Amino acid sequence: MSTPIKVLVVGATGRTGMSVAPFFNTDKGKAVTALTRESSLGKPENQKLKDRGVQVVAADLLGPKERLVDVLTGIDIVISATFWRNLFDQIPLAEAAKEAGVKRFVPCSFMTPSPRGAMRMYDWKDDILAAIQRVYLPWTSIDVGWWSEQVVPSIPSGRTQKYQSPYFEKIPGDGTMPVALTALADIGNYVAKIIVDPRTLNKKVFAYTDVHTYHEVHDLMERLSGEKTARSYVPASEVKQKIDEAEETLSKDPKNDAALMQLFFFQYQNNLGIRGDNTPAKAKIFGYLDFKELYPDVKGETVSELFQKILNGQDKDSLYYLWK
Amino acid sequence: MSTPIKVLVVGATGRTGMSVAPFFNTDKGKAVTALTRESSLGKPENQKLKDRGVQVVAADLLGPKERLVDVLTGIDIVISATFWRNLFDQIPLAEAAKEAGVKRFVPCSFMTPSPRGAMRMYDWKDDILAAIQRVYLPWTSIDVGWWSEQVVPSIPSGRTQKYQSPYFEKIPGDGTMPVALTALADIGNYVAKIIVDPRTLNKKVFAYTDVHTYHEVHDLMERLSGEKTARSYVPASEVKQKIDEAEETLSKDPKNDAALMQLFFFQYQNNLGIRGDNTPAKAKIFGYLDFKELYPDVKGETVSELFQKILNGQDKDSLYYLWK
Repeated sequence: MSTPIKVLVVGATGRTGMSVAPFFNTDKGKAVTALTRESSLGKPENQKLKDRGVQVVAADLLGPKERLVDVLTGIDIVISATFWRNLFDQIPLAEAAKEAGVKRFVPCSFMTPSPRGAMRMYDWKDDILAAIQRVYLPWTSIDVGWWSEQVVPSIPSGRTQKYQSPYFEKIPGDGTMPVALTALADIGNYVAKIIVDPRTLNKKVFAYTDVHTYHEVHDLMERLSGEKTARSYVPASEVKQKIDEAEETLSKDPKNDAALMQLFFFQYQNNLGIRGDNTPAKAKIFGYLDFKELYPDVKGETVSELFQKILNGQDKDSLYYLWK
Repeated sequence: MSTPIKVLVVGATGRTGMSVAPFFNTDKGKAVTALTRESSLGKPENQKLKDRGVQVVAADLLGPKERLVDVLTGIDIVISATFWRNLFDQIPLAEAAKEAGVKRFVPCSFMTPSPRGAMRMYDWKDDILAAIQRVYLPWTSIDVGWWSEQVVPSIPSGRTQKYQSPYFEKIPGDGTMPVALTALADIGNYVAKIIVDPRTLNKKVFAYTDVHTYHEVHDLMERLSGEKTARSYVPASEVKQKIDEAEETLSKDPKNDAALMQLFFFQYQNNLGIRGDNTPAKAKIFGYLDFKELYPDVKGETVSELFQKILNGQDKDSLYYLWK
């Protein structure tokens, strides 16, 4: 029997982390540890991880380097799914990982593919990737498109109600742009394939399950539910205006949090519905490897399967509202 | 007989361009055009290209877009080896290339591999690559390491004199860092292999011929010439100080050309002799494909062969001092 691959997950209590961390623990041949802040050890989120059999260790990313190196020594792969406000704390983590001899670092990306210069969130993540490269730490960057759970349309009966959010109730653009979708629960499985594959070392990988326009997604829900979905739109002109407005505010007041949120939100709308960067063809031009080409036999939960499950009330274990 | 691949070269009269453009013209199955400014059509450099059988057409990169689209229509591959001061003029070129249906754009890189954030020149080129990606133009970025002609040591007899330059007379660092080297004349052949290969589409490729430390290069020259080479050094502390000094000046006076030159020069010294980023192993971590893995049978002129040719006086056709 070979030694299990040792994986450490940062941000294991978030949605992406919860898809990844418990998955690895049930996957034979891998041993997973979740890293948490000293002050968060007693939180219920970490208890949930422990209940799912994940070992939880404490160390602060901005704390003493020796402690981090100590925790990382013996770890083969680090997967970071950290909260976006802590993204830059990955830089000391990467430096410690290099020192500890970690073989592969998966920085927190897990978003929609983008070129540099179109989404501030992407640019931050690209700056962090550059910092990882500058210390010569081998890496793999994984993007997963848009969560299928975030395109569940509202229907009059309310059967899809718990997936509704004021942020995603409107369709960005005119609804005709294709969008690559992944169900939250499949991220763990996809990541597990990617991180042990020598072909993906020092590469960006785009993993996704299906590609649909918003109109197709709505048509699908109407067919499966027999109800009429609500379709309203955020036109391209509004998206552009909101981005410009947020940029303008931030240029004068870089710490303005409301403007930063507005920028992030509308740059996502732009990416999804107007530029249409969240598609396999565009991702190739941005330099990504395509998950479906790497693993043609791996299947995830399709949008159709997810919708059917929700309509049947079989979605009790959904990670999407685990912490709600 | 199949239609030849139509290649357009920008910056064909520079050293990299001269390695690339005439090569393609003698390579069966490819038809090459060189793009020059209207005002440069009559220059002797363009006459030399014509003498080598290259078709020369005129259009200004900052001129009317329709004219550029017109020139680019029917072109399969654009290779840019433009002068560094004109790097950002590649953005309108790329936009026109997208409109004209160009299948692959090779932006001007042809330097040493680097991560983002370690060389301003690299960062500029990375910003241009992002602009190419934002208009969804398929691309390949090619780096070729350091020119072998730039590491020819000085010897008392003066037989290597014409390769001496005040810029490269000192060894960066302590001479123990490996450096990937390519003879200028091989760039055309290497580029020709890369640009017709589907494996390199939307990828960075690192092409090089051999890897030596500066000490090995000097030892080699001593063995081949029977003379003692001059070895002097720019220590790491001096490189760091000069970079800091240039950054400081530029932060107050961004248009200070002398400071910019100093920054570029010492960041190259840092890349080559101190960080050691110009090696195949480091390039992999920066995400590059390795030319030798892609084309194990393609051979270039080794440093040893180049030095022997120079010592024998058989280097009359060297591109390195073509325009001197």
